[in-house]
Order: sequence, then structure tokens, then C-alpha cells
Amino acid sequence: MSTEALYPEALQWNAAAGVVRVLDQTLLPEEEVWVGIETAAAMAEAIRTLKVRGAPATGIAAAVGLVQDLSRRAGSDMQGLRRSFDAAEALLRSTRPTAVNLFHALDRMRGRLESEALSDAGASQVLDGLREEAAAILEEDRLACRRIAEFGISLLSPDPAGERPEIRVMTHCNAGALATGGMGTALAPIYLAHARNWDVQVFVGETRPLFQGSRLTAWELERAGIPVTVFPDNGAAVVLARKEIDHVIVGADRIAANGDVANKLGSYGLAALAKLHDVPFMVAAPLSTIDPSTPTGAEVPIEHRHPDEVRRAGCRYVAPPTVPVFAPAFDVVPQRLITAIVTDAGVLRPPYDKAISTLPASGGAG
Amino acid sequence: MSTEALYPEALQWNAAAGVVRVLDQTLLPEEEVWVGIETAAAMAEAIRTLKVRGAPATGIAAAVGLVQDLSRRAGSDMQGLRRSFDAAEALLRSTRPTAVNLFHALDRMRGRLESEALSDAGASQVLDGLREEAAAILEEDRLACRRIAEFGISLLSPDPAGERPEIRVMTHCNAGALATGGMGTALAPIYLAHARNWDVQVFVGETRPLFQGSRLTAWELERAGIPVTVFPDNGAAVVLARKEIDHVIVGADRIAANGDVANKLGSYGLAALAKLHDVPFMVAAPLSTIDPSTPTGAEVPIEHRHPDEVRRAGCRYVAPPTVPVFAPAFDVVPQRLITAIVTDAGVLRPPYDKAISTLPASGGAG
Repeated sequence: MSTEALYPEALQWNAAAGVVRVLDQTLLPEEEVWVGIETAAAMAEAIRTLKVRGAPATGIAAAVGLVQDLSRRAGSDMQGLRRSFDAAEALLRSTRPTAVNLFHALDRMRGRLESEALSDAGASQVLDGLREEAAAILEEDRLACRRIAEFGISLLSPDPAGERPEIRVMTHCNAGALATGGMGTALAPIYLAHARNWDVQVFVGETRPLFQGSRLTAWELERAGIPVTVFPDNGAAVVLARKEIDHVIVGADRIAANGDVANKLGSYGLAALAKLHDVPFMVAAPLSTIDPSTPTGAEVPIEHRHPDEVRRAGCRYVAPPTVPVFAPAFDVVPQRLITAIVTDAGVLRPPYDKAISTLPASGGAG
Repeated sequence: MSTEALYPEALQWNAAAGVVRVLDQTLLPEEEVWVGIETAAAMAEAIRTLKVRGAPATGIAAAVGLVQDLSRRAGSDMQGLRRSFDAAEALLRSTRPTAVNLFHALDRMRGRLESEALSDAGASQVLDGLREEAAAILEEDRLACRRIAEFGISLLSPDPAGERPEIRVMTHCNAGALATGGMGTALAPIYLAHARNWDVQVFVGETRPLFQGSRLTAWELERAGIPVTVFPDNGAAVVLARKEIDHVIVGADRIAANGDVANKLGSYGLAALAKLHDVPFMVAAPLSTIDPSTPTGAEVPIEHRHPDEVRRAGCRYVAPPTVPVFAPAFDVVPQRLITAIVTDAGVLRPPYDKAISTLPASGGAG
């Protein structure tokens, strides 16, 4: 059974035809609507409104959106290309502050622009280089997901060679295919285990306010035929107390140099409750999510979303329309609560500061 | 400043005019709609669909609904009255299994029926007795809330006599006026502190799936002019970690003989996280919530709600329409995580089994 066919895509890019489309994740699971993207402004809007989201996918979308924007303005000279690049980059860079993959991807695109420009290439040749770079970012992420799956699965069962290993995994939000250019991060080992005919069951909190757990993770797993149960976020402690969860695995939006992990609001509470119930808490993320220039979680800029995302649900108000709301999009899991960090370069174990400082320079380690 | 005017009512009963109305809490905060109740079937439906909810209010609603039903059938003889009583009681008793106040209230009504019948009273006189009993249940709950306020406030500030004490309280779900016949249980000390001009701030999780925290608690506190901030349930751990919460106070649906507390799903996780962050976790409930015949939390029947309450939010699906859902309405807070239980007879402290066994016989201690 191929794992590749199992999971959905967040973004489709036909570079030859100049077509970029993102799956509008705000409409899932009710509707599958693909939105064509022509400009950096349109991609920035798609990122800001969470049509495309997830740390790795956001980086990819930014790079691809940048190329698409520049391609449409083809014919300009290098000066024009630079002007367009600067404007597009600024737009994309200002969309979301927490996930570092966005900045890494744009840094790579900028680096490619400069290195192409050094060689006295014409605008069209530079654009080809940028197109190549964006394609590489996408392809590298696809491969990173696959490597995370392989490294991750080795942690999931005490006896993976045994007869049909059984695993019960809890996850949070969506760190699946919809969040990446491949088979996901936290969900990657799950897809792989399922493809190997393991008996896998997934439990996911709905992840208020935007329900990425129930809308996206449940949708993509159900589509792949992997048993999944949704619980209200409130129920995590009870699910853990029932002693039916073997592992908690989540993704990451930014990993600091000391191993602190910024991820979707609720991750910190989940890690604390996992510890309390003796369930291992693992983080899965590509190296591009690690940011050695952020010393600890305290230095990660945390995005606060609009209060109406909490005050409203579906078409109605579920709180008084002007009530103050505390709604950070992310929180920080202190490294001491993390059992392992699964990357595409292998499994990191505490002490994380040491493990991270000896990593090969990643997209992020610049 | 009177505290009485501050808080809303869940139920209005004009016994002389034979009018019973419940505030339809499913429509808050968008609409304030009062629903007239004529029969036990209508009240049972209002309880089952959570138009009226909250452990004490459910007991009151059952008693008042029973009387309203029997009053409409006035003119029947004792045999007819008993038949109607039996049918009405059965309907009301089958609505919700967890909160014990419902059963206590119906037990009291049944007891009154039997004691009136012993005295060879006619049907109309027995009905008068039942009306008196229901009125007593309502009035006693109103007073119990007031006593809980007084006992509770003594725990809230290290120096309540100081100049304008400042308190930051976290609560969960709604254990306010809307859940009782008076000023609430968990919210009662908060109303009282506000009336005494303390500087009170309340933080409440929205309480998925039905948003009683953001829809009801935020609504009634905002209406009373008490500052309240709503957070997604996922955010509780972060709010606690910010060290800005002095106390967590929640209500209770049933308190077992050993002090275990069944309450809205999420209470267990909140208690565990409060302990981890060294924040006292208190439970406020009238004696009628204590059930000495339930030895521990493990014996409390836990209601599971329809999966669509989680799969849907407002007018849309937020999960695949057939995905399995884990959605108990309640969980159990083990007594070891509870700092104090505030009742209308005083503050209970560990060991709770001893404290509860020496209580004066309450409505529940039968």
C-alpha cells in the first residue's frame, strides 16, 4: 500500500502552467474548495485568514506565492524584479509572527535572489532560480515529512516488529498533511504505521477556537481510513486518565535553542497533563522549525488572534459581543515536559540545548 | 448596594397565577426568551434540552414543573392526583442522570405527597402541600446561595478587611445565578465581593461543547458589571501559569461521600492544572448536592451527550458528520485535588469523608 495516496494536499503548484491553488481549509470539513492564487497579496491573505496554515505549509505557500507573483510580472528588468520581490516579501513576511518556517522560506528565497544576481543573470534567469528554490523548499519538506515518519515510528511501539502493533496516539490541532508539503509531522508516523498495517487509533481535541483538530485532523485521518475519535479540548485530562493513550504527539511552530516548543494554544496544558499521567509527550517537526536564534520559548513572539474567533462559533455569538477575550494562538511547552523531538535529521533527546547546538545547519540554522 | 438585583433568574414562578417560565439558556447571549411551562413533559423537555440547567436549578425546575403539571389537572381525586404525580415524576426523573439535586427535589416532593396523604387530606389540600414544598425548595436554595457567598468570601482574600481587596478568580462552565434559585454557587462569593466593592476579576473558559462559560457566565457577570475575561478552554494552563489567578472556584453536580466531585467536563483537568500551579481549587455547592449514598466519584453515573453537540458549532459542522466523539458531560475531580468545599452549612476541609459524614442531614442525606 502506498502512503503517498493516503493523504490530502494543502497546496498544488503546476510551475509550467503557472497555476497555484490552495485548499481553503476554513471551509473543511463541509466543503473542499480550491482557491487560485495569482499574487503575493492573495497568498498573504490566504495565510492570514488561515486558508493555508501549519508551520511548514505556511513557509511553502510564502515561497510559492512569491514566485507566482513575480512570474505574473515577467518581462521586467532586474530592477523591476527586485522591486516586486521586496514588495511581495514584505507582504508575506507580515502575515503571521510565530511560526519560523515562514521567515526561513523567505530568507532562502532572498538568498537565492542575491546569489543569482551576483552572477549577472537577467531577470528571467533569476526568476527561474527562484522557481527552482521554491520547488526545492516544497520537495525538501515532502522528504522531511517522510523522514519524520520513519524516525517517529521507531518510537511508537515497544515492539514494532511484533505482530500488528497496537498504538493509541493523542494529538492536538493539525500537524498533518494539511499543515505541510507532505504527509505531515505529528501525523507522519501515524500514516506510516497505518500503511504498515499497524492497529492505530488517534484521539484529537477539537482545538478551539478554530477547530483544526476536529475539522482538519479528523477529516484527513478519516479520509485515509485511520480510526480517529474527537473530544472537546476540556476532555483531554479524562482521556489521558483512562490509560488508553500510549503517546501524545504534536507539531511545532517554532523550536527555541533550548528545546522549548511554541505550538497551538493548548499544547502546554496537554504536555503538563501527559506528564501527570505518565504518557510520553513528543514533538515532531522538520529542522526548518528550529530557530537557534531564539534562545528560549519566552522570546517567541506569540500571535493573538481576533477576539471574535472566540466570541463566535459558526454563525452565532457564543459570548457577549464585547466581552474581553484572552486568545493567544500559541503557547510554549517548556522543554522539560518533552520526551523527544522527532526531526527529519533524527530523534532529539534531552538535554535539547546540546542536541540542537550540534545539529547540521538547517534551513533555520543560518 | 443590594446584591439581589445584580443577578438574573433562571426560572420565574407565580404560584397564585399559576405561571411558570424558564429563561431559555440555549439562546443566550443572543436572545433573552422566556418559555412558559404548563406540563411536566414540557419541563422535562426544557431540562433535557438544557433550556434550564445547573444542578440546583434543575432540582427546582423539576419540583416546580411537577406542581404546575398537577395544578393544571386540579379537580381530580387523590387517586387521580397520585396517577398524575407518578407519571410526572417518572418523566422528570429520566431527564438527566448526573446531578443529584434533581433526585433530591423529587424525593422531597414524593415525601410531602406521602405525609399529606397520611393525614387523609383531599387532593386539593395535598396539592397545596406540594406547592408549599416546591416553594420551600426554591427559597431554601436562594438562601443556600447567600450562605455560600458568605462562607466563600471568607476564603477569597487573605485580608478581606483590607482596603479594597483584589481577587482574580477562575471558574468553569456556569455555576452562577442561572444555575440556581439564587445568586449561584461558585459565583455567589464573587457577586458578594463585587457588592462589597472589592476589585474582582473573573476568568472563565468557554466550556465546550455548549459554551456555558462564555455564553452564560460571561453574560451574567457582564450584566452585573463584574469584569470577566473569556478564554478558550485550551488556554486554562497558560492563564494559570501567568500567576494572575488567586483561586479557582467551580460548582458541583454531585459530591460523593468521600469528597470526589462530579462536575462539568474539564473540571478534572482544571483541578490538576491548578494543583500544578499552586492555585487553590475550591468547589461551591449546597448540601443538596452532596450524596452520601454515592461512596466515591467512580459510582457517579456520567451522562454522555449527543455527539452532534461536539460535531457541530452554531450552524455548521466542525467535524466530519460521522466521526466518533468522546463527549461525557461531566468528569470527576478526585477529592485530593480539592482545597475546600464551600457549602451553605460551612466550609468543608479534608479529610472530606469525615467532614461529610458529620454533616447535619441535608436534603440529600436521606
